[in-house]
Amino acid sequence: MLDYSEQANWENGFGQIQSPINLSTNDNQHLADYLPIHADEFYQLNTEIDDHTTIRLLGMGNASIFERPYHFQQVHFHAPAEHVIDGQVNPIEIHLVHENDVGQTVVVALFPQLGNANPDIQNIINNFEGNHDHSVSLKIHHQINDFQTGFHYLGSLTTPPLTEGVEWIVINNSNLTVSQSQVDWFIQKFGKNNRACQPINQRNIQYYHK
Amino acid sequence: MLDYSEQANWENGFGQIQSPINLSTNDNQHLADYLPIHADEFYQLNTEIDDHTTIRLLGMGNASIFERPYHFQQVHFHAPAEHVIDGQVNPIEIHLVHENDVGQTVVVALFPQLGNANPDIQNIINNFEGNHDHSVSLKIHHQINDFQTGFHYLGSLTTPPLTEGVEWIVINNSNLTVSQSQVDWFIQKFGKNNRACQPINQRNIQYYHK
Repeated sequence: MLDYSEQANWENGFGQIQSPINLSTNDNQHLADYLPIHADEFYQLNTEIDDHTTIRLLGMGNASIFERPYHFQQVHFHAPAEHVIDGQVNPIEIHLVHENDVGQTVVVALFPQLGNANPDIQNIINNFEGNHDHSVSLKIHHQINDFQTGFHYLGSLTTPPLTEGVEWIVINNSNLTVSQSQVDWFIQKFGKNNRACQPINQRNIQYYHK
Repeated sequence: MLDYSEQANWENGFGQIQSPINLSTNDNQHLADYLPIHADEFYQLNTEIDDHTTIRLLGMGNASIFERPYHFQQVHFHAPAEHVIDGQVNPIEIHLVHENDVGQTVVVALFPQLGNANPDIQNIINNFEGNHDHSVSLKIHHQINDFQTGFHYLGSLTTPPLTEGVEWIVINNSNLTVSQSQVDWFIQKFGKNNRACQPINQRNIQYYHK
């Protein structure tokens, strides 16, 4: 099982473009545009998995990302959040993992703010069965709309094997909320499962903000 | 210096999506379309480098690849060719390396057929100075036109550090030629510098052929 207290010892292959990273709305190259992503109004979730370090749900859905077709594959959660934006650590980070037909990966990261309970997350919590992967029929509704602002950069998976070449879209204007008790449920169940921020090195990060 | 006779011992990080590979016009997913690439009529080359295992020329130019902007960075040569198409090993393979603003790499591979001497390659040979990186002012003319057919897959650099996540566009309808004496010049100067084909593993390869 993944031990976040030993994450400094996780092995990785090349190590120069790892995720997560610290992001800043001031320092990066600004593009006066919305992020070029468009997704189905919902993604259909069909399998819920106890990863022991998080909940992972497999599913189906379609998205256009930078004008190219991608398939939604799975969603999972990190609490607290992994990417740090303008020094702020959000309570939770949702990772929507997409892949295209030749195997390129795009992860869309969302940061619900503390507020009302999130109905999709509540369904996922209610359906959770520890140590038991099982079929579900859930949807995640309209998580990615057409007017998102945020960051685009090249990084890695945030859990082993920490594979690089992963394209990140980190959305910072999501209007999702999550309740404190939902966040507490994740941390009580799995412990804190956020990887520490990694060196940016020579990477160029683009900030889309219309 | 890179030793191609010891290439089985080159270290790589993850190793599951390495390049080059064997490609087949029959076996792969067919897309009834041209490759979605468009490049400047020429790329400007400004520095010629003796890599000891090949000639590498740095330069500038712009391309649109899958509707996204990329910058041409460098061109280099492998003789014999690295990618094997329908079992055929071509005499030489040209790698045009492109990068976008967030650091994603696309390599366009071209395979001149034996025939007349290639004038661009002859300029590069004539300008070569062993052990001495130097400025040049050369162009490569119209290597990528708008009606290319060929393969698209996700792989790696073919020389150490063999970094994965490299997007390959392997063009098989190039109308370029190269003379036997030009091929002989490369092999006499550098020895055979083609990496062996690597396992395809679970990769999906797309073949664009209108």
